[in-house]
Amino acid sequence: MNRRTSSISFHEPRPHPGRSNSYATSISSRPSRNLTRRISGISTSELETAEEPLDPTDHAVAEEIAEIKRYEDFTTIDWVQDAAREQQRRKARRQERAGFFDQKGKIGWRRTLWEAYDAGQGWIVVTLVGIAIGLNAAFLNIITEWLSDIKLGYCTTAFYLNESFCCWGAEGGCDEWHHWSGWWPVNYVIYIIFSTAFAFTSARLVKSYAPYAAGSGISEIKCIIAGFVMKGFLGFWTLLIKSIGLPLAIASGLSVGKEGPSVHYAVCTGNVISRLFNKYRRNAAKTREILSATAAAGVAVAFGSPIGGVLFSLEEMSSYFPLKTMWRSYYCCLVATAVLAAMNPFRTGQLVMFTVRYDRDWHYFEVIFYILIGIFGGLYGAFVMKWNLRVQAFRKKYLSKFPILEASLLALGTAVICFPNMFLRIDMTEAMEILFLECEGGHDYDELCDAQNRWRMVITLLLATALRLFLVIISYGCKVPAGIFVPSMAIGASFGRMVGIMVQALHERFPDAALFAACEPDVPCITPGTYAFLGAGAALSGIMHLTVSVVVIMFELTGALTYILPTMIVVGITKAVSERFGKGGIADRMIWFNGFPFLDNKEEHTFGVPVSQTMTANPIALPATGMKIRQVEKVLAETKFQGFPVIEDEHSKILIGHIGRTELRYALDRAKKEQMASPDARCFFAPQEGSHSASTPLATAPAVSFDDMADTGGQMSVDFSKFVDPTPISVHPNLPLETVMEVFKKLGPRVILVEHRGRLTGLVTVKDCLKYQFQAEHTHDISRDAANRKDRQEERAWEVIKRTSGWVREKIGRASGGRLRLGDSSPPHPVALDDGRPASREAEVELEDRRNVV
Amino acid sequence: MNRRTSSISFHEPRPHPGRSNSYATSISSRPSRNLTRRISGISTSELETAEEPLDPTDHAVAEEIAEIKRYEDFTTIDWVQDAAREQQRRKARRQERAGFFDQKGKIGWRRTLWEAYDAGQGWIVVTLVGIAIGLNAAFLNIITEWLSDIKLGYCTTAFYLNESFCCWGAEGGCDEWHHWSGWWPVNYVIYIIFSTAFAFTSARLVKSYAPYAAGSGISEIKCIIAGFVMKGFLGFWTLLIKSIGLPLAIASGLSVGKEGPSVHYAVCTGNVISRLFNKYRRNAAKTREILSATAAAGVAVAFGSPIGGVLFSLEEMSSYFPLKTMWRSYYCCLVATAVLAAMNPFRTGQLVMFTVRYDRDWHYFEVIFYILIGIFGGLYGAFVMKWNLRVQAFRKKYLSKFPILEASLLALGTAVICFPNMFLRIDMTEAMEILFLECEGGHDYDELCDAQNRWRMVITLLLATALRLFLVIISYGCKVPAGIFVPSMAIGASFGRMVGIMVQALHERFPDAALFAACEPDVPCITPGTYAFLGAGAALSGIMHLTVSVVVIMFELTGALTYILPTMIVVGITKAVSERFGKGGIADRMIWFNGFPFLDNKEEHTFGVPVSQTMTANPIALPATGMKIRQVEKVLAETKFQGFPVIEDEHSKILIGHIGRTELRYALDRAKKEQMASPDARCFFAPQEGSHSASTPLATAPAVSFDDMADTGGQMSVDFSKFVDPTPISVHPNLPLETVMEVFKKLGPRVILVEHRGRLTGLVTVKDCLKYQFQAEHTHDISRDAANRKDRQEERAWEVIKRTSGWVREKIGRASGGRLRLGDSSPPHPVALDDGRPASREAEVELEDRRNVV
Repeated sequence: MNRRTSSISFHEPRPHPGRSNSYATSISSRPSRNLTRRISGISTSELETAEEPLDPTDHAVAEEIAEIKRYEDFTTIDWVQDAAREQQRRKARRQERAGFFDQKGKIGWRRTLWEAYDAGQGWIVVTLVGIAIGLNAAFLNIITEWLSDIKLGYCTTAFYLNESFCCWGAEGGCDEWHHWSGWWPVNYVIYIIFSTAFAFTSARLVKSYAPYAAGSGISEIKCIIAGFVMKGFLGFWTLLIKSIGLPLAIASGLSVGKEGPSVHYAVCTGNVISRLFNKYRRNAAKTREILSATAAAGVAVAFGSPIGGVLFSLEEMSSYFPLKTMWRSYYCCLVATAVLAAMNPFRTGQLVMFTVRYDRDWHYFEVIFYILIGIFGGLYGAFVMKWNLRVQAFRKKYLSKFPILEASLLALGTAVICFPNMFLRIDMTEAMEILFLECEGGHDYDELCDAQNRWRMVITLLLATALRLFLVIISYGCKVPAGIFVPSMAIGASFGRMVGIMVQALHERFPDAALFAACEPDVPCITPGTYAFLGAGAALSGIMHLTVSVVVIMFELTGALTYILPTMIVVGITKAVSERFGKGGIADRMIWFNGFPFLDNKEEHTFGVPVSQTMTANPIALPATGMKIRQVEKVLAETKFQGFPVIEDEHSKILIGHIGRTELRYALDRAKKEQMASPDARCFFAPQEGSHSASTPLATAPAVSFDDMADTGGQMSVDFSKFVDPTPISVHPNLPLETVMEVFKKLGPRVILVEHRGRLTGLVTVKDCLKYQFQAEHTHDISRDAANRKDRQEERAWEVIKRTSGWVREKIGRASGGRLRLGDSSPPHPVALDDGRPASREAEVELEDRRNVV
Repeated sequence: MNRRTSSISFHEPRPHPGRSNSYATSISSRPSRNLTRRISGISTSELETAEEPLDPTDHAVAEEIAEIKRYEDFTTIDWVQDAAREQQRRKARRQERAGFFDQKGKIGWRRTLWEAYDAGQGWIVVTLVGIAIGLNAAFLNIITEWLSDIKLGYCTTAFYLNESFCCWGAEGGCDEWHHWSGWWPVNYVIYIIFSTAFAFTSARLVKSYAPYAAGSGISEIKCIIAGFVMKGFLGFWTLLIKSIGLPLAIASGLSVGKEGPSVHYAVCTGNVISRLFNKYRRNAAKTREILSATAAAGVAVAFGSPIGGVLFSLEEMSSYFPLKTMWRSYYCCLVATAVLAAMNPFRTGQLVMFTVRYDRDWHYFEVIFYILIGIFGGLYGAFVMKWNLRVQAFRKKYLSKFPILEASLLALGTAVICFPNMFLRIDMTEAMEILFLECEGGHDYDELCDAQNRWRMVITLLLATALRLFLVIISYGCKVPAGIFVPSMAIGASFGRMVGIMVQALHERFPDAALFAACEPDVPCITPGTYAFLGAGAALSGIMHLTVSVVVIMFELTGALTYILPTMIVVGITKAVSERFGKGGIADRMIWFNGFPFLDNKEEHTFGVPVSQTMTANPIALPATGMKIRQVEKVLAETKFQGFPVIEDEHSKILIGHIGRTELRYALDRAKKEQMASPDARCFFAPQEGSHSASTPLATAPAVSFDDMADTGGQMSVDFSKFVDPTPISVHPNLPLETVMEVFKKLGPRVILVEHRGRLTGLVTVKDCLKYQFQAEHTHDISRDAANRKDRQEERAWEVIKRTSGWVREKIGRASGGRLRLGDSSPPHPVALDDGRPASREAEVELEDRRNVV
């Protein structure tokens, strides 16, 4: 794709021993003289590596390979190599500067300016990204509100105004805002039509232009930040389609939220903008910093909670979060939130739709009910995760061909169910705002605060909780931009409000009970709105398994200083309950479900085995000398390994280094094209005895080196040693597996070699560890029987869907004469099934289906 | 100290190949049979290490060594070994349980109960610790307030009440509260006497009972959490004295705060309580978790900011902060804060003294002034750090013998200076509360809000800022419990308020200026209190180099949702400015100054050298066979290294393992005492060819193994192989130094061996890295000249102090006839010197004085 090929001229390589992460080309044109020179020069220069000037060609080639690697889909980044390359780059810069000093004695102003620009590039990028995210968020908020309102009516003064702007200043509606009809069934039908149309458009856009724009994207971004490469997932098209599809999806009334997708479009923005800058095009670690920062900004603008965003990025997104990244995230959140605040999309000076303030304090006896809410949060999370994963599995298996139909039908069904319920009909954020409010102060939505309506309200809220729960389970994961934060919060809020109303009723019924002794006589004692607020926090924590960030986000939503302890209690209980049901929030489960190679920092394992048990023993290794290009080509063609250890020879197996597949491929292509090396030319992978003075010279090396067959026909020997990493991370075979996993998690190499007394004995990758972990943990858990039963259930569900769809198609076909746009075997009515709906190109992303491992 | 010696019986060791972090004793009584059995058994059993039962003796010995290691002062913990030991322990537990299952088929209720207790131990500890911290904090708050008020007067109804409790409900003083005298000079003198007495008592207590209770303790705790062992620093006496000395020190009026010491006593509490539980006595990693959590709780109770505490622990204290620790910290903060809230020490329902609420919004034009405040914060931090470090150096050099005198004189001077200034006279938190307030709403302290007094106020505030700044520089680090958070905030608040008043004056003078266009005509536009608030945040951020935690703490202090963006802007500017002046807050500088072996995560380095440049080449290594006990003893006596690599033999230098000094000492003592090994007995360090089947057998091993000289006189050979770590972390000599430092930071081994093709070539420790770093960074920075100049300045300052003190002593001696309690050569009047004051036993802590390295 973006490979910049051969704009670089070839020099005769200079001797360059020591650290050779500067993947210098040494495809020498005169191997003989070169080699001898090298051998003599090496032992003395070994400790002067630091002083040795870098070859600019080496540098360019290293950059080129780095560029190629960025585009290798579904591979992981080797952070150790990346860091080494960055060190090399800095050193080069320093030398360059030092050279400059020597020439002129002082630095010119152009130079100074350029350096300032170079140093400040990071801040420029973060500022630009922050502004872009803030603007995008404001735009999305405005569009979403308008689209949501258009389902219910329109503004007569200007069609592009939503209800609150249309009726600015007026409380509870105005004459300028027209409902579509005075008769509710017509409104109902129009509502349904709009919903379905929005969902259809959104799904259509996603399918046609950017399949990666579907879903929330948080799991994938977690993996990408950890170093997994997924081409196009953060590309411009994904950004565009996600930004357009998201308001449509939310306005369609589907039980999906904007927070997950917010993170995704924010990270896309970060990626797209940072790619314009040289520094970030080459450096994966720096890009990761930007991505972490933008993930934070995504949450910050979605919730209007800048600090919550930083903490979310820390707690959920980033496997590696040094303080520098925190500081970048902080700044990015600040800029994005400030821009959003300046845009002021709601014209209320607030950053979010549902800012509330509580004036009353809480009482210690209420802790009992808080605990209840906390338990609900934990159970909610566990329940949704369990069933949503089953729905996802079903979707992947049966519905992946009908993504658009699935989304449309889901929206249709959601609209049909939701319209009659007063809390489900309106936008989820609006519903939450209503549920959070204190009853005092004149705000009352549809008699929510009325004491007479209490039981009706409790039932409505219970219904809202249950229906929304069901809808979330089947909707999350369908092929439109869709998050799960806000739906969870809405569920929690309706449950919480229900509890609050019941407690209030209890208090009014038994005002003298010992429980309520702390209540003052004439003041309202229980504030149901606070229960709704806490319920929202509990559900959010339950589904994502977050603690600190949820507390901060909830805190930033309300500024209710007095409610920080209750929030902490509720979230704490939720966390404790949800830990009973297994580790990790829904994002982690999705990573596991999709089989991404991601080692979770949160988990701790006790295997009690040495690494030798999981390693690939005797991996395919390249001997340092004697292999022909033809043979190397064959190895490359026949295997799919991402790299090969280099050993001294097949017999001794002394480990010399490691060469990546990409580097090898690149070096081979180059040798063949530019040096016209014949397929029989011999390859040298060893740094020609250079790396250490104590080692004895190889017998084979000098054998070829005294023929001067340079500029004739084809090369008879090519030196790949510059492409070999001479210091790969290696461990002892008896090192415990847990330690090796720590090395993977904390240092992030792509591969770890296993070496015993200098000899290569094996090779281990993250996937090997994950595989072992999976086997160790699941041998007891899931029996074949259970899996079979699940499969049968899924099949039966699919049967039902097919039959119903056939029936509907028949009916419609008969009714409409011609066929309406229904694909074959489409599920017509998405409700009343306890298993899920459609899905599309998940298979592309999927590496390994966990369901089939056991 | 707490060593439990030999309550463990010795068994004949079983073959135990593979991972031997189970430091099993193999001081075999019948080496011959034992060896042969081992050799035959090994190659097959190698891959079944997981299944192999653990020897309970091995386990006990490992525990015993772990116990000893906990008490080795000024060493660092090897986290890799610690983790391995923990794995071993878990495995043992699992096996134990499995055995239990086999016997009975099901688990008895006792067993279940015990297991639940074991699993819940962590939570029990954290709960207990949280409660203790909350109670202690409440107690401290009450005492501190009483002591502070007693300086000014007393309560006639009950002497133990402070002013606000004495006058409960009354606004602005009452009749029950009596000032000491009606005439201010008498009050002045009484104020000074009380101040000096408090400081004297505090310093006396610290010196006599717990020298470690002096200062803030944050730097040391950072190192301890990172794995540095400092005996007694977190002990019971330190806890007790810190808890008693802290209120005295604060009430003495010294410019010191309670936040740093809060962290210290909280961590002491955590340490003392967790030591009562078996799980924590043995496991450094788990203890570290508790310490991180308690550090968070310390900040949480000091500021009444639970989430701020968690973030402080994350941002400042912990080099390693996995999510599990975050969750523990969260819980600990919650418990501590809840207990504090329930105790309600201020009887206002607030957790802190200076909770405020702002009702007015800010305007965009104010950002200009916010930037000004931010810059002030950055400069403040840099200035204080620079001069405080010089004062500390001076203190260490000249004043370390007079800690009590120093503190008393400081308090005396502070009282003399501070009484006349209305903002310096009162407690710092009280001053802040006053400065933070909005002028509207009836609160007015001494006409602070009066428009007529504006210029007087500006001058008073400027004076307060400057004097406090000077006092902080000379006071922080004196030998009483003393933090720097609150003084910094107080300085920032007075500066901020000053700016606020000036802006307000400007607005009132030019109400129609373009700058103030956003102000509404009849509403107060500028709120000087918010400037004070932001100033406090800026100064706190400037001195500690924190960002997110400061914002959250400030946010939790006020709940001012609208001021989160201004706070973020101010803190952001401060951070940007302070980064210009070098890395790290005052805690990091103190670590550096004291020479603790601490690798800072925040820093990034580019050395561009391989590890071979910093390593100790050819370290003293023990050959696996052939060394006599006598020789080993000699090595131990002559060197101070913390461990020794084990190599096959001197010639080949094939690396076999690493043995810690403690393990070796232990094994030797044991062998001599219980096995009566003669000094000429030969030591075996190799796992007797056991560790890998591929290796060739040693020629030397069988030579001694067939004599059966078991139970006679002295042992002729002892096997130490069980004490050798066969899988030490080792790296290639050409690995970049930066990568090695990453390994130290992230994995935390005590030592990294350098191995090339199986041969040991060197050894590197954290200190080697730090030394190299220091040399690399400071060769250009500090010239000899500058250092000499500094020394001369210090000498001159000391001359002045000595002469003044001589003069004062003479005067006092003449006036009082007999001598008053003044030591020789004491500095009498601590002001008017631009270089610092006293210090005491810092030398104990100090490992290496940075000032002498260059």
